[in-house]
Amino acid sequence: MNNTFTEIMNRRLATPIAGVHDALSAKLAEREGFEALWLSGLGLSTTHGVRDANELPWDQVLRTIDYVTQSTSVPLLVDADTGYGDFNTARIFARRAKRAGAAGVCIEDKRYPKLNSFAGGKQQLDSPELFAGKIRAMGDATSGQLYIVARTEALIVGSSMDEALLRARIYADAGADAILIHSKLTTFDEIHSFMKAWNQRAPVIIVPTTYDTTTSSRYLESGVSGVIWANQALRASVMATSEAYRSLYRESSPVQLQSKMVSVADIFSLVNNNELAEAEVKYGA
Amino acid sequence: MNNTFTEIMNRRLATPIAGVHDALSAKLAEREGFEALWLSGLGLSTTHGVRDANELPWDQVLRTIDYVTQSTSVPLLVDADTGYGDFNTARIFARRAKRAGAAGVCIEDKRYPKLNSFAGGKQQLDSPELFAGKIRAMGDATSGQLYIVARTEALIVGSSMDEALLRARIYADAGADAILIHSKLTTFDEIHSFMKAWNQRAPVIIVPTTYDTTTSSRYLESGVSGVIWANQALRASVMATSEAYRSLYRESSPVQLQSKMVSVADIFSLVNNNELAEAEVKYGA
Amino acid sequence: MNNTFTEIMNRRLATPIAGVHDALSAKLAEREGFEALWLSGLGLSTTHGVRDANELPWDQVLRTIDYVTQSTSVPLLVDADTGYGDFNTARIFARRAKRAGAAGVCIEDKRYPKLNSFAGGKQQLDSPELFAGKIRAMGDATSGQLYIVARTEALIVGSSMDEALLRARIYADAGADAILIHSKLTTFDEIHSFMKAWNQRAPVIIVPTTYDTTTSSRYLESGVSGVIWANQALRASVMATSEAYRSLYRESSPVQLQSKMVSVADIFSLVNNNELAEAEVKYGA
Amino acid sequence: MNNTFTEIMNRRLATPIAGVHDALSAKLAEREGFEALWLSGLGLSTTHGVRDANELPWDQVLRTIDYVTQSTSVPLLVDADTGYGDFNTARIFARRAKRAGAAGVCIEDKRYPKLNSFAGGKQQLDSPELFAGKIRAMGDATSGQLYIVARTEALIVGSSMDEALLRARIYADAGADAILIHSKLTTFDEIHSFMKAWNQRAPVIIVPTTYDTTTSSRYLESGVSGVIWANQALRASVMATSEAYRSLYRESSPVQLQSKMVSVADIFSLVNNNELAEAEVKYGA
Repeated sequence: MNNTFTEIMNRRLATPIAGVHDALSAKLAEREGFEALWLSGLGLSTTHGVRDANELPWDQVLRTIDYVTQSTSVPLLVDADTGYGDFNTARIFARRAKRAGAAGVCIEDKRYPKLNSFAGGKQQLDSPELFAGKIRAMGDATSGQLYIVARTEALIVGSSMDEALLRARIYADAGADAILIHSKLTTFDEIHSFMKAWNQRAPVIIVPTTYDTTTSSRYLESGVSGVIWANQALRASVMATSEAYRSLYRESSPVQLQSKMVSVADIFSLVNNNELAEAEVKYGA
Repeated sequence: MNNTFTEIMNRRLATPIAGVHDALSAKLAEREGFEALWLSGLGLSTTHGVRDANELPWDQVLRTIDYVTQSTSVPLLVDADTGYGDFNTARIFARRAKRAGAAGVCIEDKRYPKLNSFAGGKQQLDSPELFAGKIRAMGDATSGQLYIVARTEALIVGSSMDEALLRARIYADAGADAILIHSKLTTFDEIHSFMKAWNQRAPVIIVPTTYDTTTSSRYLESGVSGVIWANQALRASVMATSEAYRSLYRESSPVQLQSKMVSVADIFSLVNNNELAEAEVKYGA
Repeated sequence: MNNTFTEIMNRRLATPIAGVHDALSAKLAEREGFEALWLSGLGLSTTHGVRDANELPWDQVLRTIDYVTQSTSVPLLVDADTGYGDFNTARIFARRAKRAGAAGVCIEDKRYPKLNSFAGGKQQLDSPELFAGKIRAMGDATSGQLYIVARTEALIVGSSMDEALLRARIYADAGADAILIHSKLTTFDEIHSFMKAWNQRAPVIIVPTTYDTTTSSRYLESGVSGVIWANQALRASVMATSEAYRSLYRESSPVQLQSKMVSVADIFSLVNNNELAEAEVKYGA
Repeated sequence: MNNTFTEIMNRRLATPIAGVHDALSAKLAEREGFEALWLSGLGLSTTHGVRDANELPWDQVLRTIDYVTQSTSVPLLVDADTGYGDFNTARIFARRAKRAGAAGVCIEDKRYPKLNSFAGGKQQLDSPELFAGKIRAMGDATSGQLYIVARTEALIVGSSMDEALLRARIYADAGADAILIHSKLTTFDEIHSFMKAWNQRAPVIIVPTTYDTTTSSRYLESGVSGVIWANQALRASVMATSEAYRSLYRESSPVQLQSKMVSVADIFSLVNNNELAEAEVKYGA
């Protein structure tokens, strides 16, 4: 078990967790101070040009875990969708994600192939018993050495708060280390109610994508452990990248972009190019 | 051979070519109007958190070609560094890059493992004869169905203009479809001299990374075929992504980022999420 | 569409098809005369040390298609299990398998994750309508340029002959180019009955794993198009490999194996090592 | 550091090491009693249908290490050719091989791209100083947690015994944990002389491909630590696989192969199919 991540979750201090989509974004998030990272399924799919509906084969997820954790030191929690099938694919993925360097894996109680929570379309929940079986299988396969987060989509598909709480309880009893409670409302009220009723039975993670105008103190007061900013950096990157291409295409010059770009030297510094020059002296080349 | 790319090169109209680093950036570049894309070695390395010194295994380049060309329709020219070894690795890569969807491949006359042209450190040129052998091997292996660009780093390592011209001639004679002439000066003068002396013996591509304040009309007048904006979008993305993480970390809220991010709906639209909903109706789910 | 494979299927001459599990076995099968190859899910899983229950991520299947079709010239039919999820994963896989060099793809009407037909355990059929949707989606996604084989497991799970025939008809109507009818009996009778009732509505492929003592003339008389020897070469390889290791371990010498091994020169010749020596002369090195 | 492998090497008891080429062959070797495995470059290349000349990208080597070590429990020594370039690629590979589960990595003192030792063609040695730099870089990058074997090809390229000994000494001084001394003679004499002169300065591994009629007691008496049977199982597999395809093609029946194949049940047992059935009961499905 990654002690750092467990410790972060146990604090219950609404620690911000950065959604990342490749090793570069992970390095940037770490550099800005984030203590934990979330490998976002939406982010990873989008950078590969595919939809967040299990269009990306799951060993591309493993490969990205590998590159991210080779490039960073803070714990990585991986969005593993529904576990890519049943308890067996879920436990195999968990074991391999741990080998690849993940601190934790999060699975959600929808059916495979999943569809993004905000994508519209048909959204069906798995039975809580089958989902609990996945959680137990993942725990057994990783000997408790991987932090397992169970995400319930109950509120996303329109089920009741009672259903959400019941599912969260079943998942925690099955061995989930934390619960991720997702909401599509534009206010924090639903999550607030959940937190009161849940009463800290296990650490809780939230993803304020739709209720993103909430005052941050409310997260802290609610006692959530982690707040995932899942896709904001991706969306900022898309805007800036599009603007850069637009300007380059129109002007055939980057002059107008100068203040909006880091330097080539900054890029080199990000991947520690200096070390290579020093190593050439040390090891010959 | 990809007729579109050949046609673009034959125009000699300084067509802008967008440096891309993953399928997402490729889609954004295409959407902004670019008619051709450059899969940048620096960009690809950086997004994987590694250095532009052949630290990334070359089948990760092939995999990215695959994702990029599945997501876009405009021709993709691939930065293949030195060809990953000798004539044999170069021709195998060329054949596989073509299978993966590349329109063209560019190799440079440095030694493997290469180091980024602007990275400092030791930079050695390959012998022109050995490099010509690589070009011939790549052409033979792809039956003339892949556009082959020969990049000379002569001016980068401080060789004379005569050496640059001699090498370009040898490479064109060996079957290169175009020449990429690289310069590290901050003005266009060196390239301008090259173009006059070269006299359109074969199409020419340039990469204005250091002489990026040049007026775009000079590119056009010089008769170059393509102008690669290799890393500006990456650098803009790094700045915006860093700023987004900084803001999220400090504020525990994306409110200050609202004007700097595209919406989640825009992300969905980029990968055509609507088609999936329609397909569910058509094919059942 | 791969004309060779279509022509083979249209002959209805019980053409033998070799089950292969990697590029090496594919080369060996081609060398022995086989006109078509079957990339076996069981074979591919087993060589990776995993179970034939979708434990292998599907992009490892794509990668193997790539290596096999780069090494051989005869058409490759790919065992794609259930299509790795729903119509959407099935069509994405089909499109990518075609890009990777496959002549055809076969999907079966069980639910994902699948279990090997002979593995015992729970075996459930998909609804014929949903499965027909997968077939239509695969056809539309590949513009009729990929040979699509629909495999019904009706007889494997104990459904009636009528159910098998009904499903085959629905699948052919949905655009399947051929039907694969699977049986777990130890005699040919069941398949024989199927063929009579089917009346050549579309080409048929069979896999005589359990009824493997059938006289080959019966396959021919029945009018089947292809006979897949799915796993026999793998099983022979496992026996010989085990015996080789046993002998080496006990004797600390390969002397007793001499007559049971090809030479190193044969290995070199299989991958055409001579061409590399010739190419060194031609291209320099 | 993998204590098991170190212990095996320190014994100096000519422990047999099985050459393997995929997870399946690794499982078979382990089942027959081998205490250590060698992931053979020739074997891995051949199963992918390519030549042992760095035609296979090195991340396919990493992927195979991953599958092999997930399927077996005995230590795996990896044939890393020349380290895929310079000290930098060598150390990156070493670090990633360790992450993927390797117990040790072996590099040889030829130039990249390498050619198989028995393939004829040009064979050039790297300078001993540069090679020592690679060894030091690999050791530093893995903090002494990976067993590093330095292979000298001095005797293969026709250099003197003194040169071989000098190189071995330089490599051991640079931190190599063991030396692999390769010979292309058909008798053991050359290795015998090496061992006498070497005087157990560090553990030694040998690969009796050409001198394979040597009595095994000579290996033991010489004090070598490990004896790699690099390609015999592959060669036995090729013969048996070819014969199986030949018989299937000619007979359209496997009847003649019955005694030469393991059963399907054996294949299932190899990958522990029973556990999956039990797990379905335990976790639901």
